[in-house]
Amino acid sequence: MNSTPLEDRVAALEQHVRTLEDQAALYRLICSWGLAADTADSARAASLWTEDGVLEVEGAPTNGPANIFAIIDSEGQKRLVDQGCAHVQGFPVVSVDGDRATATNYSWVYLHTENGYEVWRSTANNWEFRRGPDGWKVVRRSAHVIDGGPEARELLARAFSAGR
Amino acid sequence: MNSTPLEDRVAALEQHVRTLEDQAALYRLICSWGLAADTADSARAASLWTEDGVLEVEGAPTNGPANIFAIIDSEGQKRLVDQGCAHVQGFPVVSVDGDRATATNYSWVYLHTENGYEVWRSTANNWEFRRGPDGWKVVRRSAHVIDGGPEARELLARAFSAGR
Amino acid sequence: MNSTPLEDRVAALEQHVRTLEDQAALYRLICSWGLAADTADSARAASLWTEDGVLEVEGAPTNGPANIFAIIDSEGQKRLVDQGCAHVQGFPVVSVDGDRATATNYSWVYLHTENGYEVWRSTANNWEFRRGPDGWKVVRRSAHVIDGGPEARELLARAFSAGR
Repeated sequence: MNSTPLEDRVAALEQHVRTLEDQAALYRLICSWGLAADTADSARAASLWTEDGVLEVEGAPTNGPANIFAIIDSEGQKRLVDQGCAHVQGFPVVSVDGDRATATNYSWVYLHTENGYEVWRSTANNWEFRRGPDGWKVVRRSAHVIDGGPEARELLARAFSAGR
Repeated sequence: MNSTPLEDRVAALEQHVRTLEDQAALYRLICSWGLAADTADSARAASLWTEDGVLEVEGAPTNGPANIFAIIDSEGQKRLVDQGCAHVQGFPVVSVDGDRATATNYSWVYLHTENGYEVWRSTANNWEFRRGPDGWKVVRRSAHVIDGGPEARELLARAFSAGR
Repeated sequence: MNSTPLEDRVAALEQHVRTLEDQAALYRLICSWGLAADTADSARAASLWTEDGVLEVEGAPTNGPANIFAIIDSEGQKRLVDQGCAHVQGFPVVSVDGDRATATNYSWVYLHTENGYEVWRSTANNWEFRRGPDGWKVVRRSAHVIDGGPEARELLARAFSAGR
């Protein structure tokens, strides 16, 4: 027999279910970035970020949705899409803490070539999220190609420093 | 204090948990397709589909479990398995609506070669599911290689048109 | 109207939520192995295993955390990390049964080269887990490269023999 009052058990369940739903929402948010990039949907890609959101790639920051929109809208990105690219997001290790969350994952890009497909990028990612009136958004994505240097290793290691 | 009657809170929790379980069941269903293909398990592969299920690859439809069985049972598929193939399914963006659901994901095929592994295919997928007496089954999988053409982009974009 | 006593409905919910949380914990455990390998975190990698844990690769067993520590701490592994490697774990098919669980998934390794990235390994995995005082740990990981031989197919097929 469980002697905890039913009201308390229901309140605990609500909290556990909320965390599971937060995790699912964050997986979807991470996947949405790749899908927006590969469909050249600049507005969608920009809308995933907070107003103060930062996309940091190989140490170089892009600040705010308008500049992130410009990346997806660029000629370079359009050439990738026209060649055939897949920005795939690996399954993340996520930590939720109230209205803040972090995630660590691998991502990679398959690129269509005359002889099939090549792995163009293999990248380490650390994400920071904030929940606002429109749900979860990305505050920062720090990404670095896995090239043997310390930067990518440092990003991956954050999976273990975040609170469970 | 939460003033909602306990009965209503429990009913709401049941609905939320059912949706989380549906998502998990659909991830399993999608992964099962790749595992069945790579183990040459034709019966298993066919059993994942409804009687009116359609597997549409590069615009060409295969109708119903018996014909899908024949694909996995074909000489071409057996050659792939004997060479060493991995039909990997990327994590999907899933939308559940009662006994109907849709999902969008990337998939790809690694093929064993004399010099390691090649990425043989990189594919965009849109899935439609229906829940019946035996649980969730696939009603339609529309797949197209990501080759720079509009077909794959259109499939990926459906992740954003489906109701949350 | 639901005529089941509220107490019973809450107990059922608790069980369902526990299973969903177990699945999430096992995804995290599987991902942690790859992250520990790529950050050369030998202590972390070893800590994921039970005292009687076995890592079996291409049929060759490594027994216990101390020997698994030595693998991640080896010169061979350090060369891979210095070259730039990503041990990516595909999404698993998981079955939880009380304090025991199993999972089947693909994994692969991207390796940085002078000309981008190569797929160095594409591997079939079957995992066995046990829950103890410190949570879930790995009892056995059986891994085999997908090279067209029967070993990898047998590992993948276990996804279908485990009880749901």
